[in-house]
Amino acid sequence: MSEPDLKKLSINLATLRGQCDLVQAVDVCLKHGITAIAPWRDQIAAVGLDRAARAVRENRLQVTGLCRGGMFPAATPEERQAAIDDNLRALEEAVALSADCLVLVVGGLPDGSKDIGAARQMVADGIAAILERCRNAKMPLAIEPLHPMYAADRACINTIDQALDVCDILDPDNTGGIGVAVDAYHVWWDPRLEAALARAGEGNRILAHHICDWLVPTKDLLLDRGMMGDGVIDLARLRRLVLAAGFDGPQEVEIFSAEDWWKRPADETARTCVERWRTHCQP
Amino acid sequence: MSEPDLKKLSINLATLRGQCDLVQAVDVCLKHGITAIAPWRDQIAAVGLDRAARAVRENRLQVTGLCRGGMFPAATPEERQAAIDDNLRALEEAVALSADCLVLVVGGLPDGSKDIGAARQMVADGIAAILERCRNAKMPLAIEPLHPMYAADRACINTIDQALDVCDILDPDNTGGIGVAVDAYHVWWDPRLEAALARAGEGNRILAHHICDWLVPTKDLLLDRGMMGDGVIDLARLRRLVLAAGFDGPQEVEIFSAEDWWKRPADETARTCVERWRTHCQP
Repeated sequence: MSEPDLKKLSINLATLRGQCDLVQAVDVCLKHGITAIAPWRDQIAAVGLDRAARAVRENRLQVTGLCRGGMFPAATPEERQAAIDDNLRALEEAVALSADCLVLVVGGLPDGSKDIGAARQMVADGIAAILERCRNAKMPLAIEPLHPMYAADRACINTIDQALDVCDILDPDNTGGIGVAVDAYHVWWDPRLEAALARAGEGNRILAHHICDWLVPTKDLLLDRGMMGDGVIDLARLRRLVLAAGFDGPQEVEIFSAEDWWKRPADETARTCVERWRTHCQP
Repeated sequence: MSEPDLKKLSINLATLRGQCDLVQAVDVCLKHGITAIAPWRDQIAAVGLDRAARAVRENRLQVTGLCRGGMFPAATPEERQAAIDDNLRALEEAVALSADCLVLVVGGLPDGSKDIGAARQMVADGIAAILERCRNAKMPLAIEPLHPMYAADRACINTIDQALDVCDILDPDNTGGIGVAVDAYHVWWDPRLEAALARAGEGNRILAHHICDWLVPTKDLLLDRGMMGDGVIDLARLRRLVLAAGFDGPQEVEIFSAEDWWKRPADETARTCVERWRTHCQP
């Protein structure tokens, strides 16, 4: 097997959140030959958008996505409008960083609500409200289906099929500008994974490919994600399916790991990402 | 609204696992007017099958299901055969208790495996190996799709649709003897919930209806399930959908709650189950 091209590896800066600010994380990535990143908005705010954009530009980094827009459902029209306004600010940041896409973690149930159908409609309405502005800015929106264990509080879009249904409703002629982010952690269990990825491929809907691993046991619903190879996900197979569906952009390592990888030296975490991506994530 | 018929409430004895053995739990249920239960095999073993069967018979209890068969995937043929043998013993216990069905928690990935497709095939093969014996004993098998967060270690069947696909493969002529257990906790998030339940209804496939609630936040993947009304699941709507699909058997309360309901007096837990079933679970 030939050596994989390191340009096909991106580090989502959540992975180094425990140790580094954005500028420090960029330095760590560069030291390990990684030239693609995906920052979070709070990480950008902490150093300032100008400084973040300069770090990207001067180092010629690829930004595989900005995390995150979304969080559309809310109890009142005013709150929903505030969410839309905030997404438009996220759009500006994504443009300033020349990101490949703006990742949408769409949001869960409004406080006190048990109506997940209504929340899902609010998501579609929220995306519809920003789509044209995003298209004009040439910034694709990547709906990220989240694992069903986050349906209540983070994202009520929980499968690739469901995300594609929203894409098809908002973009029936498939003119683009909206698609999906495929995160191994969220979708690996789906019995329709292969079929849904093929469907995504037919519409050219895949905009990002995130990786980490599902640990057994998983000790925390949010912050106990695993390094590639330490869990049960067949990441090589997933990469084959994603490639077959027409997406050959970088695999983006996104690991929320409060008790493990966030506590190790950033150098060790980054180096391990490269190693495991080489050994466990190649098609 | 007329008073709901208490015969339509069952207590899965996992709900009282922290406080009671099987015989004690039966007494608590009877005290609160509950005449349907669903025991676990370890609870039966602790008091002995004869004594458990006598408690059921003498109190004319409905047993809405025996928990549980399943756990079919394993690394070696010998282990898979051992699982099948164990399921046949579970069948005998279900028959001895005149249970409505034998609930199948089908099992996750064998140790060291990342091949969820192979695990799913082992599940279908395992069920196929016991189906005829179960049919001859007139004991229906209820495949329980578990929440996707259990795909690795408890059940690789994770949606109603997927369970129905297995039913359709093993029982293409819909002669019965195999169906699904619909547990609110596991399926509430599914964007295809309504469609999948309608499909289940067309095939007369619903054999059990379990209830509890999804808490926000959920602090533990297994043992932090909520009392009906304390979480985000629209249990009244689910009941309407289940009734529309042709199942009008009892709603069975199954709450794994190590830090809350298992620590309260059994009387309080049982009384609260009755109250919340009345107030939150009626169609």
